[in-house]
Amino acid sequence: MELNGVTIDDTYAEAFPTWVARVIITAVTEEWAYKAAVEATGFATSAIGCPCEAGIESFLSGDETPDGRPGVAILICAGKKKVKEQVVERLAECILTAPTTAVFDGLPDAEERIAVKLHFFGDGYEYKKDVGGRNCWVIPTMNGEYVGEEDFGIVKGVAGGNFFVMGENQMAALVGAQAAVDAIASICGVITSFPGGIVASGSKVGSTKYKFMPASTNEKYCPTLREKVPDSKVPEGVKAIYEIVIDGVDEDAVKEAMAEGIQAATTVPGVVFISAGNFGGSLGPFKINLADIL
Amino acid sequence: MELNGVTIDDTYAEAFPTWVARVIITAVTEEWAYKAAVEATGFATSAIGCPCEAGIESFLSGDETPDGRPGVAILICAGKKKVKEQVVERLAECILTAPTTAVFDGLPDAEERIAVKLHFFGDGYEYKKDVGGRNCWVIPTMNGEYVGEEDFGIVKGVAGGNFFVMGENQMAALVGAQAAVDAIASICGVITSFPGGIVASGSKVGSTKYKFMPASTNEKYCPTLREKVPDSKVPEGVKAIYEIVIDGVDEDAVKEAMAEGIQAATTVPGVVFISAGNFGGSLGPFKINLADIL
Amino acid sequence: MELNGVTIDDTYAEAFPTWVARVIITAVTEEWAYKAAVEATGFATSAIGCPCEAGIESFLSGDETPDGRPGVAILICAGKKKVKEQVVERLAECILTAPTTAVFDGLPDAEERIAVKLHFFGDGYEYKKDVGGRNCWVIPTMNGEYVGEEDFGIVKGVAGGNFFVMGENQMAALVGAQAAVDAIASICGVITSFPGGIVASGSKVGSTKYKFMPASTNEKYCPTLREKVPDSKVPEGVKAIYEIVIDGVDEDAVKEAMAEGIQAATTVPGVVFISAGNFGGSLGPFKINLADIL
Amino acid sequence: MELNGVTIDDTYAEAFPTWVARVIITAVTEEWAYKAAVEATGFATSAIGCPCEAGIESFLSGDETPDGRPGVAILICAGKKKVKEQVVERLAECILTAPTTAVFDGLPDAEERIAVKLHFFGDGYEYKKDVGGRNCWVIPTMNGEYVGEEDFGIVKGVAGGNFFVMGENQMAALVGAQAAVDAIASICGVITSFPGGIVASGSKVGSTKYKFMPASTNEKYCPTLREKVPDSKVPEGVKAIYEIVIDGVDEDAVKEAMAEGIQAATTVPGVVFISAGNFGGSLGPFKINLADIL
Repeated sequence: MELNGVTIDDTYAEAFPTWVARVIITAVTEEWAYKAAVEATGFATSAIGCPCEAGIESFLSGDETPDGRPGVAILICAGKKKVKEQVVERLAECILTAPTTAVFDGLPDAEERIAVKLHFFGDGYEYKKDVGGRNCWVIPTMNGEYVGEEDFGIVKGVAGGNFFVMGENQMAALVGAQAAVDAIASICGVITSFPGGIVASGSKVGSTKYKFMPASTNEKYCPTLREKVPDSKVPEGVKAIYEIVIDGVDEDAVKEAMAEGIQAATTVPGVVFISAGNFGGSLGPFKINLADIL
Repeated sequence: MELNGVTIDDTYAEAFPTWVARVIITAVTEEWAYKAAVEATGFATSAIGCPCEAGIESFLSGDETPDGRPGVAILICAGKKKVKEQVVERLAECILTAPTTAVFDGLPDAEERIAVKLHFFGDGYEYKKDVGGRNCWVIPTMNGEYVGEEDFGIVKGVAGGNFFVMGENQMAALVGAQAAVDAIASICGVITSFPGGIVASGSKVGSTKYKFMPASTNEKYCPTLREKVPDSKVPEGVKAIYEIVIDGVDEDAVKEAMAEGIQAATTVPGVVFISAGNFGGSLGPFKINLADIL
Repeated sequence: MELNGVTIDDTYAEAFPTWVARVIITAVTEEWAYKAAVEATGFATSAIGCPCEAGIESFLSGDETPDGRPGVAILICAGKKKVKEQVVERLAECILTAPTTAVFDGLPDAEERIAVKLHFFGDGYEYKKDVGGRNCWVIPTMNGEYVGEEDFGIVKGVAGGNFFVMGENQMAALVGAQAAVDAIASICGVITSFPGGIVASGSKVGSTKYKFMPASTNEKYCPTLREKVPDSKVPEGVKAIYEIVIDGVDEDAVKEAMAEGIQAATTVPGVVFISAGNFGGSLGPFKINLADIL
Repeated sequence: MELNGVTIDDTYAEAFPTWVARVIITAVTEEWAYKAAVEATGFATSAIGCPCEAGIESFLSGDETPDGRPGVAILICAGKKKVKEQVVERLAECILTAPTTAVFDGLPDAEERIAVKLHFFGDGYEYKKDVGGRNCWVIPTMNGEYVGEEDFGIVKGVAGGNFFVMGENQMAALVGAQAAVDAIASICGVITSFPGGIVASGSKVGSTKYKFMPASTNEKYCPTLREKVPDSKVPEGVKAIYEIVIDGVDEDAVKEAMAEGIQAATTVPGVVFISAGNFGGSLGPFKINLADIL
């Protein structure tokens, strides 16, 4: 199939379950909520080597937040135990410490709940307060008072939704990937956790040569190895491939993000081929056909 | 003493030793080097709860980098063993994965060295190459090739250099802190690792009420508790306090950053008092008098 | 009346008619559309001394633009003859010259139309093409091809909708104004044309002392002159006032923007009073009561 | 000649004299100085259709400004009479109106001077004050006080220094141009006045078909017309060309900017050819050979 003159591979993305928390950070201005969100979602590209996967999901106006201030919603994704630990750590170290912030649960309807008890930081000076219908703790701090909910919903979401943007050269693929990330930024319920939303070095599980490595370069998709490895999957004329990896609160959100991202990438001149990554269907329970979503 | 009409407290900042690595990230444009650096220095505000302290030290033009491309230098600070682990993890997960990046040692003259062996990711397809006089590994990736040095210098630096910006209200203190962070950004050899460079919730060691807490709110510096706690250190008329925490490659760099930051904060209307944090001199070997550096 | 503890003055904003064009700029990524929009809307704060008033109205996803690429919508406001001249000049100099841009009419339903004939730049090499149902000209350029509609709708809109954010000191008022501008940014059909959306030096018509001046400082609203001029309108305790000026496609959009902006400003600590500017109702046909919109 | 594997054309850039003013804008933080600078330098790409050419020259730390606050230096370039008019208008409309700004002469050693009398805006409430050795006027405003020098140096500088970045496709050329603009940003004494610093639609003087046009597309450099016009100057394999146009305070600054910009562009994969624009040497007194500066 073709879209805007770009070949869409007849394949599917294979994705996996993950637990997802959604945290709403508000602050005196959008800029300060954003700075806290950036710190809280850093070092969180891939569960392979980071303690979680995290990213900015959306920007919220004052109408959409419990305290009427501008906000940023982030997703934190990991296994069930790890997601609680990481929400606690990242809120404690990166948001409680940030100027003027407050924190609210972004999944109030979720049945599964985790407790994020930051109020002990108040050393007895903390107190309870209702903010916009939310049951919050107020902690006196050097900058005034921090306000935070401590009961967060988590849902079983989807990690590893993905597609590949292939270009006739590296800059075409890069700008194509950037256009995809921009488009995905406007979709609710998803994040792209890698740097700038883009993966430059997609990996395979394990390593042929170095047995101690949990993951290694995916040589079949390396353009410079096209003539050197058997069964290269790099199409003729492709010089660079970027992978966009999407985590989301459910499969529909991930599908919508994939569709919008692919659509956007195909409008960039020099993008010539779109594919997706899977493991033959043996691992992940979610199989998202590119043809079905476009 | 007074500076620009602002009272400078007659006190000192107490700081501690830390090991510091300096990593130069280059990319096709400054923007892409910056995006990788942001991801690599996230979740790294305080060694109390984060695996390390990290931040952006400076922007480098093509003249200043081994491969002639624009770059961003970051500092990663932690104990000796932890600093190696964190350089490995953050390079592997946040920079090797980022578009068009290369990585170089930013402390080539340091005697102490750590090995950061990312080349195993190449699964045997990697090869060695000299880039601008640096001994690098080239790893084939989906986006082309990643280039990286694997031998990094580390030095015994200084963590926890600090000062307090106190305002007649919260916004004055906040913009004063922002002005300080901007000024510090132009100093070489230092970072401010907290969100946006600013600490909103400075802490004391331990907790009076909750014995299991390693740190808790510093109630003597909480403006809303000024009338409620004995021995409050909040000056009359102060409604908000932000702490700027500085890590650096040596004491001189930290002193210069403190001086420039304080100077800048005092130019902001509504900033009324500058102080600094210490533990009575019992803990940290570095004592930086505010009066000496201004 | 009070909102979030902030006094809302019992007064109204007086506004005036203006002609408004809405131009949709698309580009390969949102960033490039934004850069073109910034250049095209510069030097356009006030019709008193600039050739027009202009600003960014909204960001558009690929779903919302004729060519499926990300876009930025700008408003250009002036008298009828001037608005045509300025759309022509700003498109020719700031958007046709910008990388990868295309331009579309953002008011296709408007009855009043202006012709913006940029295709002569093609020197005979230009040709017509339908793009997303829009009748466009394609002009060969050094970067490839520029695509642009040349028939633009204009509507009779509203200029000079406004309110004043007053703070107990300058930084409180400034961040309050910033929060207001952020909130207004999410409202469709309006712009805030001043630098960063904020006016620091609101003026009165004419000058008492210098008869050749068309406008001069509004001394009744100058905090430093509070004790020096008779009839100062600066409330007690106010040390700084910022004016937010809003232009829009119709009165409803301006009202909504004022309401959201005021709401946001009142959430910022240290903002103590909100008012609005008028000329006693003698000049502008639009009178927007603060009490009515909140 | 070749640089980083990219062919450098054996040609020269032809440039012209212009008058240049350099204005230092300071504000409470760098961000607010920047916002004022962006507004003041908008709608100022080319003297052909804009009232002047203007752009941001550099960012200044508090150590480098008369009032010790962070600053942004801008250049405003035009004919002698026009440069005065434009400095007056842009300062009055875009900087005096911006929050917390002050303005200082950036060319204090220039012999030629222009008077920029904004103090009449004070309507008699203005007064004189020495700030950092500069003779300033203070004007009471709604946000407090505006401070500004009114005597500005101008120098005979150079406009139209330029080079062409040619790519094997549009995205390679675009990122190459971006890398060039980034590199030029660190050079003192120059600006790149076009949107994002880049020209997408370089022009020739006049028009063959439409005699009323002062400028039209430079068909010899249009890649899509390569097979359609005689004497096309588009090298084989080139699909997109961006022009970087540089204005500066003197020829040396422009040369240095050209050298750094070209160097940077050649590091971007897919950039294949660098050239420059001239009119056969008949018009401009400055001829800058690419081979001489590299």
